Amino acid sequence: MSAKNIDAALIACNVNLLYTCGRIVSGYLYLPVDAPAQLFVKRPNNLTGEHVHPIRKPEQLPELLHACGLPLPSTLILEGDELSYSDYMRIAACFPQADVVNGTLLLRKARSIKTEQEIELFRRSGIAHARAYNRIPSVYTPGMTDRELSIEVERLMRQEGSLGIFRTFGQGMEIFMGSLLAGDNAAAPAPYDFALGGEGLDASIPIGANGSKLQKGQSIMVDIGGNFFGYMGDMTRVFSIGKLPAKAYEAHQVCIDIQDAVAAKAKPGVVCEELYQTAINLVTKAGFADYFMGAGQKAKFIGHGIGLEINELPVLAPHVKQPLEAGMTFALEPKIVLPGIGALGIENSWVVTDTGVEKLTLCNENIVEL
Amino acid sequence: MSAKNIDAALIACNVNLLYTCGRIVSGYLYLPVDAPAQLFVKRPNNLTGEHVHPIRKPEQLPELLHACGLPLPSTLILEGDELSYSDYMRIAACFPQADVVNGTLLLRKARSIKTEQEIELFRRSGIAHARAYNRIPSVYTPGMTDRELSIEVERLMRQEGSLGIFRTFGQGMEIFMGSLLAGDNAAAPAPYDFALGGEGLDASIPIGANGSKLQKGQSIMVDIGGNFFGYMGDMTRVFSIGKLPAKAYEAHQVCIDIQDAVAAKAKPGVVCEELYQTAINLVTKAGFADYFMGAGQKAKFIGHGIGLEINELPVLAPHVKQPLEAGMTFALEPKIVLPGIGALGIENSWVVTDTGVEKLTLCNENIVEL
Repeated sequence: MSAKNIDAALIACNVNLLYTCGRIVSGYLYLPVDAPAQLFVKRPNNLTGEHVHPIRKPEQLPELLHACGLPLPSTLILEGDELSYSDYMRIAACFPQADVVNGTLLLRKARSIKTEQEIELFRRSGIAHARAYNRIPSVYTPGMTDRELSIEVERLMRQEGSLGIFRTFGQGMEIFMGSLLAGDNAAAPAPYDFALGGEGLDASIPIGANGSKLQKGQSIMVDIGGNFFGYMGDMTRVFSIGKLPAKAYEAHQVCIDIQDAVAAKAKPGVVCEELYQTAINLVTKAGFADYFMGAGQKAKFIGHGIGLEINELPVLAPHVKQPLEAGMTFALEPKIVLPGIGALGIENSWVVTDTGVEKLTLCNENIVEL
Repeated sequence: MSAKNIDAALIACNVNLLYTCGRIVSGYLYLPVDAPAQLFVKRPNNLTGEHVHPIRKPEQLPELLHACGLPLPSTLILEGDELSYSDYMRIAACFPQADVVNGTLLLRKARSIKTEQEIELFRRSGIAHARAYNRIPSVYTPGMTDRELSIEVERLMRQEGSLGIFRTFGQGMEIFMGSLLAGDNAAAPAPYDFALGGEGLDASIPIGANGSKLQKGQSIMVDIGGNFFGYMGDMTRVFSIGKLPAKAYEAHQVCIDIQDAVAAKAKPGVVCEELYQTAINLVTKAGFADYFMGAGQKAKFIGHGIGLEINELPVLAPHVKQPLEAGMTFALEPKIVLPGIGALGIENSWVVTDTGVEKLTLCNENIVEL
């Protein structure tokens, strides 16, 4: 902040509160560049501490800052991509002397570089996530619908410690715990900017399983979010009802090869669009470009940052000049959708180390026959 | 809108898109007062229709409206309490000639009066919700934690058709599928403005079950959202491990009496604060005022509108002068938290009819012993 001549940030949104002060409150964290942070809390009403103060409404902030011996800021950051227009305007009006700046990008960039402690939570998430996925064959019974199998997978995830809630950046992005896509439903386009879509069960949440019966010869792609400690670990695995046509195993292997090639290239300094292009080159050479990242409607990325939200920075997409940095965590998800079969491919979570990348989700990557 | 001299509304948020055009898209619904609505869609890419047009970015809106033969609006509504500050500013900048107005309250007021079709979806939700709750005793096993029982109840809800996702108004409000509160955890204050809190399982989502073992003599309050068709039906029931102390049954009956008294009074024209005051008068007379709507931290309402989001209008709270109108749907949830026992009380969903109210969630209201 000081490099940009910003005096203070006022944090009011749940994910950024969690990031900056380790807890969610209804209230505001005031973060001056050169003094201790102050937490102003509406709810819960049982927090105490040297720098914790009760508040009823944002209009009290100037007098409360004064009571803390803090000057009012000349330049103040608010969360402009996260606060609603009306909340932003209301808070900004409390600081008429200040130049108010949208700080969301700055916060997202800070959040994109994880600490060793955050990375360790991802490692532990990966272990729990793999435990749940390893149990998937045990909950499958012939004749199930995709919805019924999804319910059982959700339960396994919860039993292994998933908190369930799926946090995203942007009001338009929403999904329940993740998606289970069987057969041609994997090709159904969705309004959301996730890698794949699916028709969904109801117009009110048009994504994921659509209630159809699982059939022999279908692939089943399981992509349920791994939120065990507030950090959204991401892992996709493919199952099959009986054997699949040879082309499916070929496509699956192409995705694993893409993953391995991108991972071999990824290290600090490598630019996101180069990794995307590596994937496109490989899938084109393999002859599956038309089915890569969706059929009909295609996702325009092969990976995305992960953290307290599922869609963090960086994005592995064309035209993204951002270089990888040590401590970044991302999901890499090369996927191919074959008509009449379904989705193939792989997704793992990774952390950028000083010299390369480390896989955070260790789990059998083959297609598992149910 | 025409009564307020507004030319058009531009709808971009999922819940309002669902309300106005019956589906979610990534894009914009343009609703002029005196011409057919036009839908501009980024994703999914397979929508077609006379009034459906592809779009890449909001800056194209003026030229696309021109191509539809529509004049640019002089006064335009945007969703100011729902769009982020940056999205609102970006869209508003596309209409420099227009007076841009925050239309969220207008939309929420419109949404608060349900059609017969919406009410029927609530009735059907209530039936599915009751089917799931009736099965709760069958999934309890002695020695369970609150988390384990919650997972089983979530599964029952999903099996009966719950879509899982829990939509709220406001970025600060979040919860997984709902809450299961056992014993004193019901008194733990949360940052969220739901009726009760609970410590939660992790700092990243501090609400609901906290992982403790269920004990004899505890009440277990189950308040899992009933989202079966996109409409958030709300129903709470209380279970017990063995028998509870006599005071618990007394408190539970007080809540049912409050419910019945409020329901007997509720009809079009009755003001929300009167219903709140009715509840306060009864609970005070019964001697449970100190434990009403939470111990320590108390919710400042006894009910809330329900619809596509769980916290719609109207709010049954002090100082709310809004009168009930036919077609409004609301949850009424008088609850008492007794130290050493847990939460007692009831919650049902209701619709305001021409002459009174109709209960939408029909299910045994007694404390059910597990």
